[in-house]
Amino acid sequence: MQLRRADVLRGARELIDAEGLDGLTMRKLGAQLKVQAGALYWHFPSKQALLDAIADDLVATVADAPPAGPWDQRIVTMAHRLRRALLSMRDGARLVAETFTTEPNTLLAGRTGMQILIDAGMQPDKAAWTMLALSHYIVGHTIEEQAPCDDVPAKLEASAAKYGADLVAELGAAVTADPDRRFDFGLGLMIDGIRRYL
Amino acid sequence: MQLRRADVLRGARELIDAEGLDGLTMRKLGAQLKVQAGALYWHFPSKQALLDAIADDLVATVADAPPAGPWDQRIVTMAHRLRRALLSMRDGARLVAETFTTEPNTLLAGRTGMQILIDAGMQPDKAAWTMLALSHYIVGHTIEEQAPCDDVPAKLEASAAKYGADLVAELGAAVTADPDRRFDFGLGLMIDGIRRYL
Repeated sequence: MQLRRADVLRGARELIDAEGLDGLTMRKLGAQLKVQAGALYWHFPSKQALLDAIADDLVATVADAPPAGPWDQRIVTMAHRLRRALLSMRDGARLVAETFTTEPNTLLAGRTGMQILIDAGMQPDKAAWTMLALSHYIVGHTIEEQAPCDDVPAKLEASAAKYGADLVAELGAAVTADPDRRFDFGLGLMIDGIRRYL
Repeated sequence: MQLRRADVLRGARELIDAEGLDGLTMRKLGAQLKVQAGALYWHFPSKQALLDAIADDLVATVADAPPAGPWDQRIVTMAHRLRRALLSMRDGARLVAETFTTEPNTLLAGRTGMQILIDAGMQPDKAAWTMLALSHYIVGHTIEEQAPCDDVPAKLEASAAKYGADLVAELGAAVTADPDRRFDFGLGLMIDGIRRYL
């Protein structure tokens, strides 16, 4: 049976889900798909090209225009879609951070968001910079959520004993708060900042 | 000669600078420092503890209170210090993103920023959430700067040929713009968003 591009992408995602981003090698992927490495390279000239394609696949849901409505609501919808997409796969945020993808979904997602901001009254160059800044916030937030961390409460408790409960209390409460709410708070700061340019 | 904690930290940073974050193993570090792995574990109970310590070391400059002045200027100074610290070391941003450090410099940096915001009129819980959101933006921005990317202009050119120059133009201009200016633009959005809470 012929190996299709979609098979390679699916196999790579399964390997990353099982072993993490650092566990993906073309050799292991070939073994998992029971093909020679050459069959993979026929579809993707390098591991980096494969990573780019996985990253672009991952953000497919972000490329669709969000439902009509006020600009801020539409940007929030896009941000939530991106965060959900990153969370849907192990190391998804790291994957997107460490690739520079110029494939259609990524480009369309950027363009869709830019158009929403331009329609709201922003200059095109500022709209592009804003979309990049939003993506950096979203990716940065989600990388920390997906990082394999040891027991956070135990670490906070140990530090409170060592350095004083005072120093640890507020930040400890913040880092252990609901990540959805924390995410929306930071997103809200950026949305409020955007208003100045409209 | 006795192996000191500072020697281990310095050796680990040298190894990361040479081979990247994924190149650091306790075995390789022992070989480089010409000691048994046991000597490393005497200072750090695990590789994760070592990474936490390097990350905390890296942000030492951020823990100091910035010069007196308006709150927004002081927050900008802290953000610039953090970005410079992350950029000072290969994979510095990834290191900070993938560790959860409750060591003194990290805690003090958070506390210092919170106090600036509280003095400006923000509620303590919001101040803590704001510092986290700022750190996610800064780390997300810097990870992308430090990612080992293939030739970005060539990729943009290929995509423009394939998908249309139109789709690539504005985003292409944004991603190839001066990262310092792009960083400050996104930071400015968040600072403007903070004003609403003061």
